[in-house]
Amino acid sequence: MLAYLESLSLVDHHCHGVLNRDLDRPAFEALLTEADHPGPTSMFDTQVGFALRRWCPPVLGLDAHADPDAYLARRAELGAAEVNRRFLAAAGLAALCVDTGYTPESILDPPDLGRLAGAPAHEIVRLESVAEQVAADGGGAATFADEVRARVEGSGAVGAKSIAAYRAGLELSGERPSAAELTAAAGRLMREEAPRVCDEVLHRFLVWCAVDAGLPVQFHVGIGDVDADLRRGDPLLLIELLRAMDPAPAMLLHNYPFHRNAGYLAQVLPNVYVDVGLATHNLGHRAPALIAELLELAPFGKVLYSSDAFGLSELFHLGALLFRRGLADFLGGGVDDGAWTAADAERVAGLIASGNARRVYGI
Amino acid sequence: MLAYLESLSLVDHHCHGVLNRDLDRPAFEALLTEADHPGPTSMFDTQVGFALRRWCPPVLGLDAHADPDAYLARRAELGAAEVNRRFLAAAGLAALCVDTGYTPESILDPPDLGRLAGAPAHEIVRLESVAEQVAADGGGAATFADEVRARVEGSGAVGAKSIAAYRAGLELSGERPSAAELTAAAGRLMREEAPRVCDEVLHRFLVWCAVDAGLPVQFHVGIGDVDADLRRGDPLLLIELLRAMDPAPAMLLHNYPFHRNAGYLAQVLPNVYVDVGLATHNLGHRAPALIAELLELAPFGKVLYSSDAFGLSELFHLGALLFRRGLADFLGGGVDDGAWTAADAERVAGLIASGNARRVYGI
Amino acid sequence: MLAYLESLSLVDHHCHGVLNRDLDRPAFEALLTEADHPGPTSMFDTQVGFALRRWCPPVLGLDAHADPDAYLARRAELGAAEVNRRFLAAAGLAALCVDTGYTPESILDPPDLGRLAGAPAHEIVRLESVAEQVAADGGGAATFADEVRARVEGSGAVGAKSIAAYRAGLELSGERPSAAELTAAAGRLMREEAPRVCDEVLHRFLVWCAVDAGLPVQFHVGIGDVDADLRRGDPLLLIELLRAMDPAPAMLLHNYPFHRNAGYLAQVLPNVYVDVGLATHNLGHRAPALIAELLELAPFGKVLYSSDAFGLSELFHLGALLFRRGLADFLGGGVDDGAWTAADAERVAGLIASGNARRVYGI
Repeated sequence: MLAYLESLSLVDHHCHGVLNRDLDRPAFEALLTEADHPGPTSMFDTQVGFALRRWCPPVLGLDAHADPDAYLARRAELGAAEVNRRFLAAAGLAALCVDTGYTPESILDPPDLGRLAGAPAHEIVRLESVAEQVAADGGGAATFADEVRARVEGSGAVGAKSIAAYRAGLELSGERPSAAELTAAAGRLMREEAPRVCDEVLHRFLVWCAVDAGLPVQFHVGIGDVDADLRRGDPLLLIELLRAMDPAPAMLLHNYPFHRNAGYLAQVLPNVYVDVGLATHNLGHRAPALIAELLELAPFGKVLYSSDAFGLSELFHLGALLFRRGLADFLGGGVDDGAWTAADAERVAGLIASGNARRVYGI
Repeated sequence: MLAYLESLSLVDHHCHGVLNRDLDRPAFEALLTEADHPGPTSMFDTQVGFALRRWCPPVLGLDAHADPDAYLARRAELGAAEVNRRFLAAAGLAALCVDTGYTPESILDPPDLGRLAGAPAHEIVRLESVAEQVAADGGGAATFADEVRARVEGSGAVGAKSIAAYRAGLELSGERPSAAELTAAAGRLMREEAPRVCDEVLHRFLVWCAVDAGLPVQFHVGIGDVDADLRRGDPLLLIELLRAMDPAPAMLLHNYPFHRNAGYLAQVLPNVYVDVGLATHNLGHRAPALIAELLELAPFGKVLYSSDAFGLSELFHLGALLFRRGLADFLGGGVDDGAWTAADAERVAGLIASGNARRVYGI
Repeated sequence: MLAYLESLSLVDHHCHGVLNRDLDRPAFEALLTEADHPGPTSMFDTQVGFALRRWCPPVLGLDAHADPDAYLARRAELGAAEVNRRFLAAAGLAALCVDTGYTPESILDPPDLGRLAGAPAHEIVRLESVAEQVAADGGGAATFADEVRARVEGSGAVGAKSIAAYRAGLELSGERPSAAELTAAAGRLMREEAPRVCDEVLHRFLVWCAVDAGLPVQFHVGIGDVDADLRRGDPLLLIELLRAMDPAPAMLLHNYPFHRNAGYLAQVLPNVYVDVGLATHNLGHRAPALIAELLELAPFGKVLYSSDAFGLSELFHLGALLFRRGLADFLGGGVDDGAWTAADAERVAGLIASGNARRVYGI
């Protein structure tokens, strides 16, 4: 199965840009995990660190398991542009859907990423960023809703993303907000010095804007940066809105450690799709266990691949490689055991690698 | 160990009736998972679908991995009566405990099931259905409680079932409701046009009716139909009532994805028992992982088998087969590793296959 | 890897005393799990019971898998003192950190344990016990805070432990309580006949006392005695206080079944450390699966060993043995698979066995 998976190009339906400058060890380590500062131990002494040291040095011409300083020296020698070129190419992507809403510093944009990957790069519009920009641009609370709707519709994106999980949490009602609720919430947002959406009404409104624009809606779920409050990131909290959105597609991203809950939602709700992006490379050698757990309840037509790569181009390669290997383990193990046929396994591999994403996003 | 498990008849302590009519593909798929409508992908492309295609065609005289249409054609050719006869017989049951409270259309009743299975079929009375029937029958709120108690006591059932998890949720207090609370709640119920119990006081009252009638109480926990709100289905929510009921047996059904939480309750509370019905066949090839996780904390004298089969007689066979194989994996793996003796493994197999259920239900 | 792990002494950073008297079967079984009474089945028919029967009889000169009565007869023949001596020595400890705050009956104290183990035994001061003693000693609410602070600082302990999870729960704010809040809470506590801390303000105050005294703070998390309400024991509830404490070390104990949530906190928060004490021996043959799950997100420099042994000296041996074997499985499996080098695996083994604990506690 692994050879078959390696022959398949993947649609990476959720990723970000990467840095285009050389990185010293602290800067590199800071991008390797989601902590905001490293604490007493090296971030290389983690599953993701060990996985990176196993799989990435050969792409740069070093032996596997190179030590961190040797790896970073070689990385600097080649330069960021060459490193990014190699890892994006190594990922073997058929298409990318790039979340352009998080840019703490200058990173490669979708056209750049697509050129390096040799694949079309589509944009995912981050809903809260649109709303914050509209609020910052001024105008009245009365026109806020129309302006946000117009920008989402006119974004040219193939999907939208909600980061409610980072802000007010995923417990969003299924109701469309009333005009009065919305005007009040917009007014509050516009009175903030640096508008930052953290309001159940606004998150919900934004989701409906995307639905009305015909866009699949990605939801950040589960693990993420340290400022994600995981208590409010369980996808079960979102069930009412997921039901209300049907048949608009809802894409649950990351999901760990709630991936079994997400699989349940993908089974019982026809419009719900799931992935284990970010967690796949974070878990490294344990990624096969994660993928097997996701595939307990989630129908095979509802599972997608994403890297959630950000900052380091290594993560495009690592995510794709670990996902292919984990999925090959799972599907090939079933074939070996007689649980399903090789033909069915290959068909499922094709769905998960790219077919499901192509169908949902229309790419 | 597998041969030994295959020699043991199972008590299926929680199941439902099956349809006695031929089914087209949409009707069959709709019964294969808990979604209320299928969405864009076939329900055969799931773990349960793949497991069914592996294990069920041979019972109907086809090769394993038959494709869905060939399978359904053969099913139609044999007819529902013959198909049901074969799968109920194949399950290898020593006894059945049948929940008779969910009959969206005509299904086989316990005597029919028992005849097909060649085993006694006992009834489990669904508590909310009794209360709803009493309310629909009229009479006053003042006599409601006595009438419900009388019907539960006179039901002839070997156990009772609460579906609080589908309605008001599992966060039920341990207190018996006062007469005043009860009369008020009964009054509210009786004023509904189609009485439907969804009231913390009534769910709790019903559990105490069953306890007072000397019946073990089954609780729906964790996964279920799409209208189960999994947020309110974590068994930890039930801890106060579980403590208060002791020594009356509380049977936690399904439990996935909270099966580890359920195992904890089975360890620390002497009256709590657990199973992984429904999840066993839903997880298909992953059922061994599920069973191993359940057996982390749950004492071996507190674990039972159930299929939670509904609608399709295949699920009786599939549940029993996957459970036997998963338990054999777990117990046999431990013998191979020297973790326990074959004699202890066989003793535990006997407890879980039927001994624990016989002791609790007195059958 | 197993030989290497067996060559390493462990720091057991969270344990309790053991009984120094002979035990009949009911008394022994009662100490084997966390239930408060056994219910209908033997506590030997559990993972911990089977693991004990596999690994402990040889230490007393019996064959593995001895039956419980034979084992207890041999235990009585040797006498508690000899049994304790053998199991503490067998554990292979480099140091112990002993929680002295739970003594329902006379148990061995840290110096006794250290002598039997041949290793230094440090004290962990239980914060709620200090506060309850101060309240019981009288004095005014106004001096309560100073007196508690003085006793924590003067305790000579290498760490402090909070049992908020057993009382008011882990949802503790990150704010330091105000003097007024504290005086009010102290007044309430002092008016109780038998003062028992169960108050969000007091738990929080106690944590800050420990932080101010420069002590790492252990938190009971997840499974425990039957009076632990697991709903309030999820480590995610503690995130605000964990953030606020940084850089003071927070040690999350036990964690099962929330060990993946704990691993996430250890990744994103620089001051958070984790273990799977208690769960390791409770899960017996499944301990390797638990350890592998803990090591998904937790950085290798943030994972510690503890037994959480209480009452039975067998648990010191069993915890250490199962932890060494589970960690060897994990690390050695990765070496076999090429996921990391043997040198890196040995380095990580050393961190987890003792290096991380020595660094945090300064021992």
